Amino acid sequence: MSESIEVLGGRARAAAQVLALSTGAARNRALAAMAQALEAQEGEILAANARDMAAAVASGMSGALQDRLRLTPARIASMREGVRAIAGESDPVGLVLGGGVRPNGLRVERVSVPLGVIAVIFEARPNVAADAAALCIKSCNAVILRGGKEAIASNTAIVAALRGALAAAGLPADGVQLVEDTTRKSAQALMQATGLVDVLIPRGGAGLIRAVVEQARVPVIETGAGVCHVYADAAADVETAVNIIENAKTTRPSVCNAIETILVHQAIAPALLPALAARLAAWPVELRCDAAALALLPGDPNATPATEADWATEYGELILAVKVVDSIEEAMAHIRRYGTKHSECIVTQEYAAAQRFLREVDAAAVYVNASTRFTDGGEFGYGAEIGISTQKLHARGPLGLRHLTSEKYMIYGEGQIRI
Amino acid sequence: MSESIEVLGGRARAAAQVLALSTGAARNRALAAMAQALEAQEGEILAANARDMAAAVASGMSGALQDRLRLTPARIASMREGVRAIAGESDPVGLVLGGGVRPNGLRVERVSVPLGVIAVIFEARPNVAADAAALCIKSCNAVILRGGKEAIASNTAIVAALRGALAAAGLPADGVQLVEDTTRKSAQALMQATGLVDVLIPRGGAGLIRAVVEQARVPVIETGAGVCHVYADAAADVETAVNIIENAKTTRPSVCNAIETILVHQAIAPALLPALAARLAAWPVELRCDAAALALLPGDPNATPATEADWATEYGELILAVKVVDSIEEAMAHIRRYGTKHSECIVTQEYAAAQRFLREVDAAAVYVNASTRFTDGGEFGYGAEIGISTQKLHARGPLGLRHLTSEKYMIYGEGQIRI
Repeated sequence: MSESIEVLGGRARAAAQVLALSTGAARNRALAAMAQALEAQEGEILAANARDMAAAVASGMSGALQDRLRLTPARIASMREGVRAIAGESDPVGLVLGGGVRPNGLRVERVSVPLGVIAVIFEARPNVAADAAALCIKSCNAVILRGGKEAIASNTAIVAALRGALAAAGLPADGVQLVEDTTRKSAQALMQATGLVDVLIPRGGAGLIRAVVEQARVPVIETGAGVCHVYADAAADVETAVNIIENAKTTRPSVCNAIETILVHQAIAPALLPALAARLAAWPVELRCDAAALALLPGDPNATPATEADWATEYGELILAVKVVDSIEEAMAHIRRYGTKHSECIVTQEYAAAQRFLREVDAAAVYVNASTRFTDGGEFGYGAEIGISTQKLHARGPLGLRHLTSEKYMIYGEGQIRI
Repeated sequence: MSESIEVLGGRARAAAQVLALSTGAARNRALAAMAQALEAQEGEILAANARDMAAAVASGMSGALQDRLRLTPARIASMREGVRAIAGESDPVGLVLGGGVRPNGLRVERVSVPLGVIAVIFEARPNVAADAAALCIKSCNAVILRGGKEAIASNTAIVAALRGALAAAGLPADGVQLVEDTTRKSAQALMQATGLVDVLIPRGGAGLIRAVVEQARVPVIETGAGVCHVYADAAADVETAVNIIENAKTTRPSVCNAIETILVHQAIAPALLPALAARLAAWPVELRCDAAALALLPGDPNATPATEADWATEYGELILAVKVVDSIEEAMAHIRRYGTKHSECIVTQEYAAAQRFLREVDAAAVYVNASTRFTDGGEFGYGAEIGISTQKLHARGPLGLRHLTSEKYMIYGEGQIRI
């Protein structure tokens, strides 16, 4: 029998109160213990993962999903290193962000404080459990993890290791809790746990994000959906465009900063598309082309006609939608209509086109002449991230430690009253 | 026949795109024109307000609500001055907030950008229309205003003046729109306008906030509910405590930073409560007391027994709940249970008690020895505000121009790909 979200939420709140008053040194010791526990209990974690994998195989899970679910000694080592790296980052809470003395002598300080209780709903990848737990503990937040049912044995083993480490380090084990119930009911209960959950972070595909937007009553930071574009301008360098498109599509097609569609200016399409198709044939990447693009790739076995649905699809695999446009305006209008405000790129040699794209395209990250694959906390120099936010409130782009905090004003008076 | 939220939302989006590319100089000219239009059309606005007031009187509206609804030449002058002051603030968009060059040569910049379309649901006070419109235009956002039905004639006249001024200044009139339908239906439609409304800001009482939390699908910044406390510690100076409590309760009891409850350490209660009761008798303030407090105010005609409901009530008038506590722990536990995380104050001469209260109390603003009435954008030195946020995401405390923005990463490359 699994425990109710109300019970978990109450324990998380109590743990969050203790964490809020813990020292950075104590939290770093706990993180070191968490990394060590992942090492010490590697056997248990791998055995639990083997049970999840067996069930996955039996249920006919796709190879791509099986790959996300699978743990290996190398992947556990990387989880561990992730936890250690988070311990090494600077403390995000208690920072004096600003302030000063008002004319009446009041001293007003703005200070970073924890959010409190963070809920993370995620899907098949068990490494999310360790990443999210480490980021939350570092930032003095309690976390309630609700993973997919496919990974329940793995997540249970990982969370057991982390909780034991927390307790051994003298911090409350309830700083990290796992929801045992993996039915829709528990996800909905978390989404509606007003007063228990301060922030909900969904990490998963479009279906999860949609459910959260429709059902959540607690504050949410949306992450994940990425229908990203490269626009090859009339003034693009063909070689640069081909390099960037290949990199942004093929290096890791399942992640959100990979591209799904390219928009090619008609002036450069006759030069660019055959060169690109030749480069992508090696993978091969399937090209879903509009009529103009298809006409420039006669007889290409990888090129097929696109339908309306292609422009709005996050493929997550080696498929690329291709559209020829008449102008930068048409490209930007297409991005406005079909993009998810994640990462967008223009390839151009022209100053005015670059400036215009940077200014007018509304997305978390807008690039000139670089791969969209750089949208990442580490690549931007911000350290570990819990996801890429595609919303405009609170955090946009890589969601790191500093975004797992709120603020509070501390005001030092000497009896001042307001007249 | 009123227009659908979908129609208003589409126009707002188009206007927001134009505003996002406008110059600060153009927006300041528009704000100056808006202030001027409020002056030029004062007659129409006052006549419209007179119609609202006549309907309010006929419907038996309370005196306090009538006072919120009423416009006078002085109040219109103050709206105008508010708009001019907002024009004078520094531009919140286009600021380079951070950035640098990555080891691979990529230049990454973090830049402030508008939120897009902001919806503001407010109640009886028509000055909110001008304030919110000015803050949104200054920050390049389009605003959809949805005021209460009591103020519909006043709001219509004000928005007509503002729209005319925007158009005359060469910016889209649809940067400011008013929802004509004042039924619950239009409020619900705004709350659920995913994709049309980027942020919803409710400005009103507990009922409105609750409805928004339960029904909203768009991102929300909660404002307003304030069950604020003063805790008079064992080591409080009695005169300081009496001054602060009187100020925080009586200077403007209807606003959210006024206090509702005082918590008095038992060691100081015998000295403090009679002195306080004597001071507050002049107003008079009704005191809803727990048994221990009541016993210290024998025969006081303003003192009555408190019930459980008193601890959770935002009176908004000259009523104060009074509770005697045994310790700072009991005071903080009470605040945790009944507070709304708005503004909390300790009065004490003891360093350790002050530090503890500042650190442990979770609220937007935590005070030592000063009135909670200072929780205000202007008083904190941040300029005009659209409300006080009591949530933890995005903005906490006074919600000013800088909070009406999001961020975007601009990345300047030279063909970089991710390896």
